[in-house]
Amino acid sequence: SSPGGKSKPPPVAHYNLNNVTITSNPIEHGENILILTPMARFYQGYWDNLLKLSYPHELITLGFILPKNKEGNAATTELQKQIARTQKSGPEKDRFKSIIILRQDFDPPLPSQDEGERHKMQNQKARRSAMAKARNSLLFTTLGPSTSWVLWLDADIIESPPTLIQDLALHDKPLIAANCFQRYFNTEKKKMDERPYDFNNWQDSPTAQELASKMGPDDILLEGYADMATYRALMAYMPTIDGGTDIHQEVPLDGVGGTALLVKADVHRDGAMFPAFPFYHLIETEGFAKMAKRLGWQASGLPNYKVYHYNE
Amino acid sequence: SSPGGKSKPPPVAHYNLNNVTITSNPIEHGENILILTPMARFYQGYWDNLLKLSYPHELITLGFILPKNKEGNAATTELQKQIARTQKSGPEKDRFKSIIILRQDFDPPLPSQDEGERHKMQNQKARRSAMAKARNSLLFTTLGPSTSWVLWLDADIIESPPTLIQDLALHDKPLIAANCFQRYFNTEKKKMDERPYDFNNWQDSPTAQELASKMGPDDILLEGYADMATYRALMAYMPTIDGGTDIHQEVPLDGVGGTALLVKADVHRDGAMFPAFPFYHLIETEGFAKMAKRLGWQASGLPNYKVYHYNE
Ligand SMILES: Nc1nc2c(ncn2[C@@H]2O[C@H](COP(=O)(O)OP(=O)(O)O)[C@@H](O)[C@H]2O)c(=O)[nH]1
Ligand SMILES: Nc1nc2c(ncn2[C@@H]2O[C@H](COP(=O)(O)OP(=O)(O)O)[C@@H](O)[C@H]2O)c(=O)[nH]1
Ligand SMILES: [Mn+2]
Ligand SMILES: [Mn+2]
Repeated sequence: SSPGGKSKPPPVAHYNLNNVTITSNPIEHGENILILTPMARFYQGYWDNLLKLSYPHELITLGFILPKNKEGNAATTELQKQIARTQKSGPEKDRFKSIIILRQDFDPPLPSQDEGERHKMQNQKARRSAMAKARNSLLFTTLGPSTSWVLWLDADIIESPPTLIQDLALHDKPLIAANCFQRYFNTEKKKMDERPYDFNNWQDSPTAQELASKMGPDDILLEGYADMATYRALMAYMPTIDGGTDIHQEVPLDGVGGTALLVKADVHRDGAMFPAFPFYHLIETEGFAKMAKRLGWQASGLPNYKVYHYNE
Repeated sequence: SSPGGKSKPPPVAHYNLNNVTITSNPIEHGENILILTPMARFYQGYWDNLLKLSYPHELITLGFILPKNKEGNAATTELQKQIARTQKSGPEKDRFKSIIILRQDFDPPLPSQDEGERHKMQNQKARRSAMAKARNSLLFTTLGPSTSWVLWLDADIIESPPTLIQDLALHDKPLIAANCFQRYFNTEKKKMDERPYDFNNWQDSPTAQELASKMGPDDILLEGYADMATYRALMAYMPTIDGGTDIHQEVPLDGVGGTALLVKADVHRDGAMFPAFPFYHLIETEGFAKMAKRLGWQASGLPNYKVYHYNE
């Protein structure tokens, strides 16, 4: 009995965070997954794999953030085309619960997204700080009270299993990373081969700790650069050690990458985010693993569970 | 032309963060405000002041988080009663855009919310760490892509001006805190008087820096305890210095409280949250100010702009 009688009462939502389960069997419990992707370029292989995910699509929300530059505009156009096809005219089972597309309000620090340019050591701090802010903007504005899991999936992961969500969730870990490889043509062997790609999944080393202890407060440790030998144990190099047969083999990690990383939503809700500033001399996804640890959550990785990065 | 033809396409939302303005004249620009309140007890004065806010209510979303214990249950019941009254049968102009109520999924670390108990020094780290997690859960799940400002307002602030949002926003600061006082009966003067309440709004001191530098990595600095004299400049003691006439007088701050604090949503979107772990030996709202600073955002306070805390 509203006095105006015109507008219906505004929504009041009541959520009991206790009732949001986060289990190793998320399908049975109808758990909501948020897939978050920072996207500078659109890759068809990435989208095709999203569509092939066997996790019920009505439980999946997709969130994207794209830079506000020429490349980002092109990727947005392509992404929207694919979304329209899936959500409007595709089979109902393919359709996702909801989709959020954000455009960044700050400029990417590098003029080019080419691999050579973006991997230069002197470009890392600015680049990864901007990536951290992009990930945080996406996370803070899309995570909901009923989200159980957040899957961080980079836009250039063009091969990943349809059971990715179930396979990672099965381990019931607060943070769990797949191992990111890259296919390439091995000119010596004269055939296609694969090589490790993501060096951000690692176990700490005394050398890295020692390096860090001598650094200025604003310096960061970087992985995968010859100039800065850390002697950390990289998950990327672990599979070859044991033959790589057991896809369920787990290792504890101190740093993680964001290429394919499943996170319990409670880790983020406690406040774990991607530091855009040096945090224990770590930044972005590596700093995130450390922050999660400070909040009591231990990261893990699956050395033999592989996803593949695009090769330019 | 959907093949199934039954269900309407799921929502796809496209947001351009560039188009979300954050200005000193938020009403003119139709800026959305999110008011966030951790609430252990319900106070009628708090709710009455929300209703009296002259900022257009259709631009205001309210978010609450309450503990899952007996006190929290009672507060939730009372809050829901007031919400129903306002949103369903109150005048249309009083109704807020939307309201989200969260119930915490972890227990408060202290059995009692009484002032004596909760202000004991040895209880501070556990209590404020839990408060930080509650604030983060609330923030991470309610902040949206179109939010311009977040007003942190404690549930026990029972006196605040109707123009609170406009007055604070006018200063165009990334973070700006009102000065939180408490009314009490001055037995000497035999009349009502007021005294400073929130000691978390401060400017750093060499003594505090020195104390911090000698602490273990997990120790925290606390303000307002005789055992730990920091010699920081407390905003709570500033008004008496200059007579307290100019409500627009600004001071820079290094630590902030959360009693009445207006934050540009971009500060949070960059990743600034409430550390539940010692961050530069600071925690919760004080750690938040430091984290914002690391992200390039400077906190401010208004020593002569007062709000009043409940007196038990
Ligand atoms: N929103 C946004 N996404 C970006 C930006 N730069 C890269 N990305 C995306 O972020 C993810 C990781 O970045 P990428 O450059 O591939 O990192 P690398 O593979 O570790 O060199 C990929 O999905 C990129 O498409 C940026 O400036 N803004
Ligand atoms: N959700 C939640 N809110 C709390 C809890 N404890 C206190 N609060 C609320 O958080 C705010 C600040 O806490 P309070 O105890 O008043 O802090 P103080 O005034 O600095 O001693 C107030 O709005 C409280 O009602 C808690 O355990 N959970
Ligand atoms: Mn990549
Ligand atoms: Mn209080």
